[in-house]
Amino acid sequence: VRAAILAHDKFGPLTSKTGVCILRYSKDYQTVAVIDRSKAGKTADAFVGAIGKDVPIVGHLRDSLKFKPEVLIIGIAPMGGGLPQEWREELRLAIENKMQVISGLHYFLGDDPELGPLAAKHKVKIWDVRKPQRPNRIATMDGAKVNGLVVHTMGTDCNSGKMTTAVEIAREAQRRGIKAAFAATGQTGIMIGCEAGAPIDRIISDFVAGAAEELVLECDKKGSDLTVVEGQGSLDHFAYSGVTLGLMHGSYADFIVVCHQAGRQYLGEYARDEEPPQKILPLKWHIETIERLCEPVHPSKVAAISLATFTMTEAEAKKAIAHVEKETGLPVTDPVRFGPGKLLDACIAAAEKHKVNKPGVKRLRTSKAIAPR
Amino acid sequence: VRAAILAHDKFGPLTSKTGVCILRYSKDYQTVAVIDRSKAGKTADAFVGAIGKDVPIVGHLRDSLKFKPEVLIIGIAPMGGGLPQEWREELRLAIENKMQVISGLHYFLGDDPELGPLAAKHKVKIWDVRKPQRPNRIATMDGAKVNGLVVHTMGTDCNSGKMTTAVEIAREAQRRGIKAAFAATGQTGIMIGCEAGAPIDRIISDFVAGAAEELVLECDKKGSDLTVVEGQGSLDHFAYSGVTLGLMHGSYADFIVVCHQAGRQYLGEYARDEEPPQKILPLKWHIETIERLCEPVHPSKVAAISLATFTMTEAEAKKAIAHVEKETGLPVTDPVRFGPGKLLDACIAAAEKHKVNKPGVKRLRTSKAIAPR
Repeated sequence: VRAAILAHDKFGPLTSKTGVCILRYSKDYQTVAVIDRSKAGKTADAFVGAIGKDVPIVGHLRDSLKFKPEVLIIGIAPMGGGLPQEWREELRLAIENKMQVISGLHYFLGDDPELGPLAAKHKVKIWDVRKPQRPNRIATMDGAKVNGLVVHTMGTDCNSGKMTTAVEIAREAQRRGIKAAFAATGQTGIMIGCEAGAPIDRIISDFVAGAAEELVLECDKKGSDLTVVEGQGSLDHFAYSGVTLGLMHGSYADFIVVCHQAGRQYLGEYARDEEPPQKILPLKWHIETIERLCEPVHPSKVAAISLATFTMTEAEAKKAIAHVEKETGLPVTDPVRFGPGKLLDACIAAAEKHKVNKPGVKRLRTSKAIAPR
Repeated sequence: VRAAILAHDKFGPLTSKTGVCILRYSKDYQTVAVIDRSKAGKTADAFVGAIGKDVPIVGHLRDSLKFKPEVLIIGIAPMGGGLPQEWREELRLAIENKMQVISGLHYFLGDDPELGPLAAKHKVKIWDVRKPQRPNRIATMDGAKVNGLVVHTMGTDCNSGKMTTAVEIAREAQRRGIKAAFAATGQTGIMIGCEAGAPIDRIISDFVAGAAEELVLECDKKGSDLTVVEGQGSLDHFAYSGVTLGLMHGSYADFIVVCHQAGRQYLGEYARDEEPPQKILPLKWHIETIERLCEPVHPSKVAAISLATFTMTEAEAKKAIAHVEKETGLPVTDPVRFGPGKLLDACIAAAEKHKVNKPGVKRLRTSKAIAPR
């Protein structure tokens, strides 16, 4: 499916996460144009590296039409998830040109009094990815009893590699022949394709853990021997910590992979230019706090650290990884730069070491899943 | 306003929290009948002590009509907040008898295809207390800059006295002439009356901290020198921990009062009879975890423990309080049994000790707020 990605003023690895992940991971959508008025005339690789290829960047939706896009994907996430009114004209134009619209906004385009009827008139589908699709349910602790190993990615901030790390580990396991599942919890993960997905930050707070648990149960039903649940936010984030903790408890993970961007010092610094916001706490704080909070519900250990190093040279990245390995005593790598094998190995090794007694773990042991180190 | 309270099979201090709190705290609603088919013919005091007075218990809504109730309050909270279909007949009858209906269910009665139109036909108001009334907003950290001291009640489980403790502290402060506010975060708190209220567990998870912050800001606008924010759930609760943490961070509390029911050993044991669920962690774990998680957002200390002792004799209660004081080194009391003065004093003393530098604290100091000990 030919897709145009809307990312006005923000196309880049940290500021248009959805757009970049569509480019990197989507199996269903082939990006034929990026729409960013501040970068028109260049190609995507100039801003997001090799995965951007020579995809043209145009300044307005109308200029993307010549590439025959069938779908418009909103590739950026405005704070609070509202609809910037300035996008209206281009959304209208997309629908009038029979493009499907895929949006991860909190504001549902399908319910918009103008865009909803317009889409119906033109027989165009609007997919509001963040619209919950399942009935609300309270967590029951059944999720703790699944057959497969459950790994959960958590972060030191938003936008620190939790989704990327989860996808990378799950796909690496699948490449090794493991029945592995990626459980997506955010709009981007759902868009790129997953074994089970729910927009966790959109769920009514009472039902967050229950929704996470349902994803784990769904992957179990599909026979998953290794389910990787994407995390959200971070435990010390003033605005999103509740989403993080509810999701963590509802995942009943056996092991956690903590994701951090090397060199980032402040929460959300990638998106702000005003006063310095909250300082990111040391990895040690995150590891201790995660394990402390997992203990009463489903004891869990941090098995590895995923370090995003895309702002660094390769030599700097290796140095940063060695530094964090020394700091934490855990296996560390950048799964995008150096491959996710080390993180998957760390999870399987941790399951052995901590004698996780689940049928799925036995199958991991007897398969060729454990790569030679 | 004359009220009947629906509490089938569950009228009692732990199993019909809403009903009991209406009896104990409501300024607006005078309870004229309790509806509980398993206890018909007795009076409320037989099940909830003195606050129940001689309010008659009847077996069916129709038997309450002779007491001329103007309002039907749903006094129990089924797990998950759905509408038990067996209540339908009585709800219909209430509406047909021109009674207003007040419900804290997650399921909105006003949106019910039968009850909504029926209420419209009979010109009867349905108040779905859990329906969010404000636009969604992301937390901004503005709540950390209010003028007044902010105290937050947190618990070792659901139903452990968080709302009661918050109301008691706020009302005691008001009795002492302090401009104090009770910020309600649950349906019961909103029903009994509050300076600001929002159904936090019903808010979309991304906006929980923002909704809590808005309550604190609203109380600030009303001139509050002491805002007491009701907590929800507990940090180790497998189903509700996310609500707890989002609310905690969004409250930016200066001090926390931890609420625990003396003698309770398992989460939710008051409502279950199957397998033993999760064990309640020691108060020490709760205190350390709360302070650890507050630190990065708005550093806060636990100032006191509120101990619910209603299952005990007075001698046992005093012993339990002394035991917890020794265990935690903090001031402890049961605010319902022995009055909330000690808890309020502890918060004011903590503000002095930790030199909280807010204009409201200065006003507390110069008022007669500090009771003689």
